[in-house]
Amino acid sequence: MTAVKRTVTHLADGRELIYFDESEGTVRDAVDRRDLPPPPSASELRHDPLLDEWVAVAAHRQGRIHLPPTTECPLCPSTADWQTEIPAADYDVVVFENRFPSLSHRGAAVGSAPLTGLTPVRPGIGRCEVVCFTSAHSTSFADLTPARVATVMEAWADRTAELSGLPGVEQVFCFENRGEEIGVTLHHPHGQIYAYPFVTPRTRRMLASARAYADRTGGANLFAALLAAERSAERVVAANEHWTAFVPAFARWPYEVHLYPHRQIADIPTLTGTERAAFGPLYLEVLRRLDGLFGKAMPYIAAWHQAPQRTDRHLAYLHLQLFSVRRAPGKLKHLAGSESAMGVFVNDVRPEEAARRLREVVL
Amino acid sequence: MTAVKRTVTHLADGRELIYFDESEGTVRDAVDRRDLPPPPSASELRHDPLLDEWVAVAAHRQGRIHLPPTTECPLCPSTADWQTEIPAADYDVVVFENRFPSLSHRGAAVGSAPLTGLTPVRPGIGRCEVVCFTSAHSTSFADLTPARVATVMEAWADRTAELSGLPGVEQVFCFENRGEEIGVTLHHPHGQIYAYPFVTPRTRRMLASARAYADRTGGANLFAALLAAERSAERVVAANEHWTAFVPAFARWPYEVHLYPHRQIADIPTLTGTERAAFGPLYLEVLRRLDGLFGKAMPYIAAWHQAPQRTDRHLAYLHLQLFSVRRAPGKLKHLAGSESAMGVFVNDVRPEEAARRLREVVL
Repeated sequence: MTAVKRTVTHLADGRELIYFDESEGTVRDAVDRRDLPPPPSASELRHDPLLDEWVAVAAHRQGRIHLPPTTECPLCPSTADWQTEIPAADYDVVVFENRFPSLSHRGAAVGSAPLTGLTPVRPGIGRCEVVCFTSAHSTSFADLTPARVATVMEAWADRTAELSGLPGVEQVFCFENRGEEIGVTLHHPHGQIYAYPFVTPRTRRMLASARAYADRTGGANLFAALLAAERSAERVVAANEHWTAFVPAFARWPYEVHLYPHRQIADIPTLTGTERAAFGPLYLEVLRRLDGLFGKAMPYIAAWHQAPQRTDRHLAYLHLQLFSVRRAPGKLKHLAGSESAMGVFVNDVRPEEAARRLREVVL
Repeated sequence: MTAVKRTVTHLADGRELIYFDESEGTVRDAVDRRDLPPPPSASELRHDPLLDEWVAVAAHRQGRIHLPPTTECPLCPSTADWQTEIPAADYDVVVFENRFPSLSHRGAAVGSAPLTGLTPVRPGIGRCEVVCFTSAHSTSFADLTPARVATVMEAWADRTAELSGLPGVEQVFCFENRGEEIGVTLHHPHGQIYAYPFVTPRTRRMLASARAYADRTGGANLFAALLAAERSAERVVAANEHWTAFVPAFARWPYEVHLYPHRQIADIPTLTGTERAAFGPLYLEVLRRLDGLFGKAMPYIAAWHQAPQRTDRHLAYLHLQLFSVRRAPGKLKHLAGSESAMGVFVNDVRPEEAARRLREVVL
């Protein structure tokens, strides 16, 4: 495993910032001298009694920075003239608390009285962090070296372990949104981490399916069975000794690839050094195939599905879900009535065809 | 109730087209003389074993018409020079089978063999229809007269009743997608109807909640309780004797309004003439308030939640869910990682604030 040096510091408004350095000798003593207002208090969580789901109401996020010019990027290293979220003059990988968080431990903006008898409200306890993958502004995750991907994984593992231990946190979600087409407000290569105070709806549903499958089969794991079935099917995009990347038979997005480790584990901290080292090259290949499809950078969401902290960990199976909303060079897949209001997805690209096209991209 | 004359005809490729005319004397004898290929066969439904949901794979939809120039609109009446989906020289409201359907009764494109042991496949039986609200191309639903809205409701009621009786259909969904921002490919004012061969995921979840609530309360209806609570709260946008429009306390979209009839009924066909007549003026007011928010046409989805045909009809409660993805004049709410991959919505606009702004729009 890469020896990564971890240094915890704080920004001017008290938010935590953590450097993950690839060189052991790096000293992190730069000080954030900006005059910042205190971070906002926690958002509100409101319970939807029809869908039995929590919705976060975070009105302060409306003021967040929206597509600033490159010279005003808040994720670049600081210079004498321009002070950013990262006080240092350079960095490898850095993680800090989001200035406009959907979830936070900083006090509750809500009382405990429900809005109506049917909609309980509670503070949006949790944490939102930003992960900068590189200090090089005009690049993307696909441009990272495998060694840098290993450092990013080290950061994801560190944050997953630490945030899981915060009071009330039930699930940690590491993800990357890329592309203006899906609402990205900053172009600098970065991802995010949400620490939720509940098990998310998708995870609850997946684990309910896994529980039913285990009951039905005398203990078999649904995700492992799915991986085994897909490894011998025509939808594999790329694979190595420790990971397989495939388009699931039931993909709901035009281009959707799932990356599974070959061993059933609960979360990123549980991956061995060998498994972590094997992930980077495979994921980079998949990302480059995705970008190669239409000869232009693809908007995508990359989502790590990790086990919740306290619930059904033995049923879960770590995997990365990567999907794009681009269905053709000038066309996006929008979630319209059927998807957004009824939950029924219509995919215009056959999963077998998506896998074939991804395999045929010349790298 | 408006006396609407209904005339069933067929297009050149055999698809059904139904006129709903406001004048009893209208004769519909125009013939579609286009040379059209046969409509595509049914899409595939694939079962997602992780989420326990069906996904429609409809590869033929990639070829559908995308934002044609106004002079080539397929939803305008036909002229001597330009033949459209509607052979007539004018119409009031017209419904026809979608040329690029996600669901259809025209044969199965799939075998019965599952893709993998875990992903059952079946033909996408059902029906997709297009509803043209007016022949006036450069208008929108908000420009209709209340009388025309009554005609549209007549068409929705007719189609709901008829499609519910088709073999295998379990639920009928009437909706409108408006605005390029949500992927609308034709600007002409129109809606759609999907007849699904299953109860949709959102409906299943709502009815499960309603069942649990009824069990807990000795038979009370969850939707009725919700309406009662919201009618006395600060989130009402507009109301009349038969309908109330409110922003739910747990809204997940920046601007989201639900319209409930005051009487618990299962679906549009069950509405009385008085209730139908009262709907138009209220809905038109809400749509105009929505368009007035930022002084520009809002992209929106308007979704009728109707009871399934055979399941839990007594628990259901007809309502219209109207929501926009626009959160500020130049900004859209995108479904990024938290929403798309985890199912956790973050709303940047407080529902109480959204309701207040909608009420304050000067009409």
